[in-house]
Amino acid sequence: MAKQKYGAGIWHFATYVDRYATDGYGPARSLIEMIDLAGQVEDLSVVDINYPFVDPSLSLDTVEAALKRNNLSVIGITPEIYTRQFARGAFTNPDPGIRRLANEMVNDAANVVRRFGADYVKLWPGQDGWDYPFQVDHRQLWQMSMDGVGELASQNPDLKFVIEYKPREPRNHMSYDSVARTLLGIEKIGLPNIGILLDFGHSLYGGESPADAAQLAIDHGRLFGMDVNDNLRGWDDDMIAGSVHPIELFEFFYTLRKNKWDGVWQLDQFPFREDSVQAANAAISFLKVIERALDKLDFAAMQDAQDRQDAVAAMKLARDALFTSY
Amino acid sequence: MAKQKYGAGIWHFATYVDRYATDGYGPARSLIEMIDLAGQVEDLSVVDINYPFVDPSLSLDTVEAALKRNNLSVIGITPEIYTRQFARGAFTNPDPGIRRLANEMVNDAANVVRRFGADYVKLWPGQDGWDYPFQVDHRQLWQMSMDGVGELASQNPDLKFVIEYKPREPRNHMSYDSVARTLLGIEKIGLPNIGILLDFGHSLYGGESPADAAQLAIDHGRLFGMDVNDNLRGWDDDMIAGSVHPIELFEFFYTLRKNKWDGVWQLDQFPFREDSVQAANAAISFLKVIERALDKLDFAAMQDAQDRQDAVAAMKLARDALFTSY
Amino acid sequence: MAKQKYGAGIWHFATYVDRYATDGYGPARSLIEMIDLAGQVEDLSVVDINYPFVDPSLSLDTVEAALKRNNLSVIGITPEIYTRQFARGAFTNPDPGIRRLANEMVNDAANVVRRFGADYVKLWPGQDGWDYPFQVDHRQLWQMSMDGVGELASQNPDLKFVIEYKPREPRNHMSYDSVARTLLGIEKIGLPNIGILLDFGHSLYGGESPADAAQLAIDHGRLFGMDVNDNLRGWDDDMIAGSVHPIELFEFFYTLRKNKWDGVWQLDQFPFREDSVQAANAAISFLKVIERALDKLDFAAMQDAQDRQDAVAAMKLARDALFTSY
Amino acid sequence: MAKQKYGAGIWHFATYVDRYATDGYGPARSLIEMIDLAGQVEDLSVVDINYPFVDPSLSLDTVEAALKRNNLSVIGITPEIYTRQFARGAFTNPDPGIRRLANEMVNDAANVVRRFGADYVKLWPGQDGWDYPFQVDHRQLWQMSMDGVGELASQNPDLKFVIEYKPREPRNHMSYDSVARTLLGIEKIGLPNIGILLDFGHSLYGGESPADAAQLAIDHGRLFGMDVNDNLRGWDDDMIAGSVHPIELFEFFYTLRKNKWDGVWQLDQFPFREDSVQAANAAISFLKVIERALDKLDFAAMQDAQDRQDAVAAMKLARDALFTSY
Repeated sequence: MAKQKYGAGIWHFATYVDRYATDGYGPARSLIEMIDLAGQVEDLSVVDINYPFVDPSLSLDTVEAALKRNNLSVIGITPEIYTRQFARGAFTNPDPGIRRLANEMVNDAANVVRRFGADYVKLWPGQDGWDYPFQVDHRQLWQMSMDGVGELASQNPDLKFVIEYKPREPRNHMSYDSVARTLLGIEKIGLPNIGILLDFGHSLYGGESPADAAQLAIDHGRLFGMDVNDNLRGWDDDMIAGSVHPIELFEFFYTLRKNKWDGVWQLDQFPFREDSVQAANAAISFLKVIERALDKLDFAAMQDAQDRQDAVAAMKLARDALFTSY
Repeated sequence: MAKQKYGAGIWHFATYVDRYATDGYGPARSLIEMIDLAGQVEDLSVVDINYPFVDPSLSLDTVEAALKRNNLSVIGITPEIYTRQFARGAFTNPDPGIRRLANEMVNDAANVVRRFGADYVKLWPGQDGWDYPFQVDHRQLWQMSMDGVGELASQNPDLKFVIEYKPREPRNHMSYDSVARTLLGIEKIGLPNIGILLDFGHSLYGGESPADAAQLAIDHGRLFGMDVNDNLRGWDDDMIAGSVHPIELFEFFYTLRKNKWDGVWQLDQFPFREDSVQAANAAISFLKVIERALDKLDFAAMQDAQDRQDAVAAMKLARDALFTSY
Repeated sequence: MAKQKYGAGIWHFATYVDRYATDGYGPARSLIEMIDLAGQVEDLSVVDINYPFVDPSLSLDTVEAALKRNNLSVIGITPEIYTRQFARGAFTNPDPGIRRLANEMVNDAANVVRRFGADYVKLWPGQDGWDYPFQVDHRQLWQMSMDGVGELASQNPDLKFVIEYKPREPRNHMSYDSVARTLLGIEKIGLPNIGILLDFGHSLYGGESPADAAQLAIDHGRLFGMDVNDNLRGWDDDMIAGSVHPIELFEFFYTLRKNKWDGVWQLDQFPFREDSVQAANAAISFLKVIERALDKLDFAAMQDAQDRQDAVAAMKLARDALFTSY
Repeated sequence: MAKQKYGAGIWHFATYVDRYATDGYGPARSLIEMIDLAGQVEDLSVVDINYPFVDPSLSLDTVEAALKRNNLSVIGITPEIYTRQFARGAFTNPDPGIRRLANEMVNDAANVVRRFGADYVKLWPGQDGWDYPFQVDHRQLWQMSMDGVGELASQNPDLKFVIEYKPREPRNHMSYDSVARTLLGIEKIGLPNIGILLDFGHSLYGGESPADAAQLAIDHGRLFGMDVNDNLRGWDDDMIAGSVHPIELFEFFYTLRKNKWDGVWQLDQFPFREDSVQAANAAISFLKVIERALDKLDFAAMQDAQDRQDAVAAMKLARDALFTSY
C-alpha cells in the first residue's frame, strides 16, 4: 500500500469567531498565513480551501506560490454558501435570486477546482434546512436541496461534487442531515458525479456509527472523500481526532482499508483555543498509530469474529492491534 | 372528510417488565383482558396484535369474539421477532437457523393477517443491529436486513409489510434506524408491498422532524401506517401523545392532512405506571383537539408562510388554530 | 397580583455572528439602535445590557436617554467576560493577570449597575470550563470558579450577583453547568448576595426539568432572576419561548407562581434569521397566555393531583387551563 | 501501593429481561449460579449482592459458603427498592405505607451488610423521580428523597449508606440525578455516614465528566464507592468498561490515584448478549492496562500541563502512558 496522504481543511489554521467571542479567538489570519501554518505540520500534503478567499483580492497565482513553497496541493474547494447572504439558505433560499447567487458562486469555485487540478467541489449547505416547527414545506425544501446540487453537477459534468452532510448547525436542522438521507437524495438526482464527503464527527454526533456510514456510502459507490475530528457526541465540537473516540476512529479506518478505499485522510478540526499546528500534529501522529494498527490487525480473524457478531472477540482483536502500535 | 379512526397497539393495555422491575409493573394480563380494556377506551376502532399471542393456546375464534364484543377490528399483526430466541437478531442473526425461524414466525403472522382481514404485517426488528464498535460487518448486516424483509414480501405478494424503524433499544443501534435509511433499503429491495410504519416518537428522538419524515415517506409512496406517543427526545419513552410536544405533533398531522393521507391514527404508548384506559383517553382527547385544529387552520395562509419560510408567521397560524380548538 | 413585568437581554435586538457566517447575520447594530428596537416591543419594561457597550465611546447619559424615551429601565448588567481576552477563561484563566482583568471588568460593570439602579450584576462565565479530557485539574478549576465569584460578591456587598449556569457552549463543558452544581458552589462560598439567574433553555437542554430547577433554587433562597426561550433539548438554540415546549414552560411559571416568586419574566432569545421585534412579540404574547392560564388553573386540584403523583390528572388540569387561555 | 482489588455487582452474572424480550435474554440464574460464575473471573475479589436474594428461601449460610469457595467477599448489599411494589417510588412513593416498606427492606439489607461484614448499604432509588411535566410537587419529592435516606442513616449510624445517582431509567427523571444534586442533598441531610457510589456510565451519559464528578465527591469527603462500565453517552448501556471511552476512563482513575482514593474498582456491566465471564475478564484486563498506565504516567508533568490547561500537552502525556501499557 502506498504511503498514506494526509490533508486538512485550510480553516484548521484560521482563527474563529462565535456568537459570544465576537472579536474572535485570535487576530484574523490571511489565507497565505494559513497556508504557511499548514506547511509547518509534519506530514500534510493537501488542503481544502474556502472560496471566495478570505482576502478577496488575492490572486490565484499568489495562492499557488504559497502552496508550492509549502509542498501542498489542493484536494477540494469549499464555496462559502453559508455566509450572510445565504443566511436563509443557499439551494433552498426562498428567494430565487439568492439561489441563483449560490449557483454562480459554486460555478466560480468549480473553475478554481479546475485551475488547481483539485479533486472536487465540496458542498456544505449549512444554512439549508429549518429552525422551527411549521417553518417550511418539507417536500419543497427537499426538492430544492436536490435541485440545487443536481443543477451544479449537470453544469459541470467534468467535475466531482461532494456533499458534506451534517445533522445541524448553524441551522437547527440541515436538509442533508445523514448519510442515508444524502444517499437517498443522490440516487434521486441520478448523476454519477455527486458523492459524499463523510465527516467522522458529523456522523458520530448524528447517532450513526461512522464505520457503518462509510460502508453504506461505499456500497452505493458514493464515498468520494472524508475527514476526521472528534466530539462529545452531542455537537460538532471539531476536537482533535482520537482525543475521545479512538476505538470508533479505528473502526472507521478499518472499514476504509477493508474496502480498499485509498483516498486522503483529512482533518476537519477547529482548534479554538489551541495552537493549530500542534493540534494538527497531535491528530496526525495518532492517525499514524492507526495506520500501523491496520497493518498489524488480523483482518481474517476480525472478519471471523464479525461473522459471529462476537463483540468481545472483536474488541480484543482491535485492542491488540491498536494498543500495541503507538 | 370521513370521521377519523383511532387505533392502538394492544400492548398499550399490557403490563410491562424492565431490567429492574423484573417482577413487572403489574400482574400479567391475558390478551383477552387487554382487548377488553381496549374496548373501554372512548373512541378506539382498531388494534395491532402481537403474534404469537401472550397465551399461546388461545384460539383465533376466541380472539375474534373478544374483538367483536368490543367493536374492534385488527389493523396489523406484529410478530414477536425480538424475544429470547431472537436476542442476537432475527433477520440478521449470525445463525441461519434462527433467521429461518424468524421467517417462519412472520409467515405464520401473515396468515393471521389474512384471517383477520388486517392491513399489514408489522416488522419491528428490534434485535437487528449491533451494540459494540467492531462487532459486525456493516455491509453484511445491512444486506441481511434487506434480504430478510425482501424474502417475506416476495413470499406474500398479497400482503403489505410495514417496517417500523427506530434508532435503538433494545439494541444499542438498530439497522433500520431512520426514515431515510429504511427508504433506502426499501428502494433497494424494490418490491411494492413494503412500506414504513412511522412512529412519531422514534422519529423525534432519532433527531428527525416527524413531519419531514412523514413527507419523505409519502413522497416515496411508502407511508403505510403510523402511530404516535411522546418522549423527552432522548429515548423512546412512549409517553402519552401530546404531553410534551403538542406543536410538533400538530405539524405531523398537518403534513398528513395536507397530503390527504387518510389512514388510522394509532397510539403506541407504554403506560408503565398509569391506568392504560385513562392514558389512551388522554391521548385521543388531545388528538381530537388536533383534528379540530386542522379543520380550523388556514392551509393557504400556512402554505404562504412556508413558501416564505417565515417561522414567526407560521407559528402564529399554528397557535391560532391549536390553542382555540380545545 | 400586580401586572407582570417583561424584560429582555438587549442582545435579543443585536445581529449575530457564528463560526460560519463570520460576516454576521445582518449589519452590526449600535446599542442605541438595539434599545430603540426594544422600545418597539409591545410590552417590554426592562432590559439587561452587556458591558462594555458595543460602542465603547457611548456615554452612560446617552444610553440613559435612549432607555428613557423607550420607557425602559435596566434590570441587570452583563459584563462580557467571554470575549477574546477571556477565551481561555475569566475566573479560571490559567493566567492570574487575566483573572485580574475579569475582576476589574466586573467591578466596572458593578458601577454601571449602581448608576442605573439595576437589580444585579449578571455573571455568565461561558469560557470557564474545559474542552478535553485531562485538560484541567478539576479541583483547582472549581476552586477558581468559586473564588472568582466570591471575591466579587465580597467586594460589592451592596449588590446582588447572579450566576447564569449553562451546560456548555462556547466551552465544551462549563464549570457552572447546572442548578445543583451552582447551588453547591454558592453554599460553599457562603455569601448572601450571590444567586442564580435561571435560563429555562439552559436547564432544559441540560437534562433538568426547569420547574424542578426553579423549585430547588427557590428552596435555597437563591432564585434571583430568570429568563426564557426554547430549544430542541440538545443545544442552547435560544428559540422563541413556547415554540417547542409550551407545557414545560407553563409548569415552570406555575412553580414560580406557587412560590409567589414575583420577579420579571425575561427573554433570552437569539433570533438569528427572524425579525427581533416580531420574535419578542411572539414570545410575550404566548407568555400572556400563560399568565391567563395561571389565573385560571385550579391550584388546589393541581396540588392534589401532584400529592398523588397522578400524571394523567395533572396533565388534564394543565391542558384545561392552558388551551383555554389563548 | 497495594495490589488493586476488583469487584462486580452480582447482577453482572445474571440474565436479563427488558420490555421486549420479556422471556429474558437467557434462562434465569440462581444467586449461587451467579456467584459461581463470578468465581470464574480471573481477578475478582468482592461482589455487591441484591437483597432480597433472587431465591428468597436461600440461607445466608449457603450464600456465604458459595462466596467462600469462590474466594469472594461482599462489599455491599443493594436492596431492591425498585421492583413492582416500588414502581411508583420507594422513598418518594405517594403512599406512606410503601415508603415504610422501603425503609424496612433497607433495614433488613443493613443486617445483611453486618452479617457479611460488608462496607455499605447501596441505595439506588431508580423509581424515585417523575415521568411527566406537572406530575409531582418538586419540593415535596426532593424532601422525601432526602428524608428517606436520612432516616435510614440515622437508624443505622454504624453503617455507611451510598447513593448511586443516575439521570434516568426506569423513571424518565430520577431525583438523585447527578453528583452535584446528590451532594447538595447529602449536605442538607447532614449525616456523616451517607456518601456517593459513583457509576462512571451514569456520570458520562448525564453530561458530566466522570473525573470531575469524582473530584467533587472527594472534595466533599463523600466518595464512598464507584463502579465502571461504558456507554454511547445517551443511555445507561452498561457496556464493557473501556470499549468506547478509554481516555475518559483513564482520566477517571487518574483522578482517583491523584487523590489517593484506594477503594475497590468495581464493574457494573449488563452483558445482555455476551458471556458474562468473558465480559468481566475483558473489562478487568483493560483496567489492568490502566493500572500500569497510572504507574507509568508522569504525574508532575501532567499537573504542570493542567496548571497551564494545555489540552494538547496533557493528551500527549495521557496517550504516552496509556498506549504503551497494554
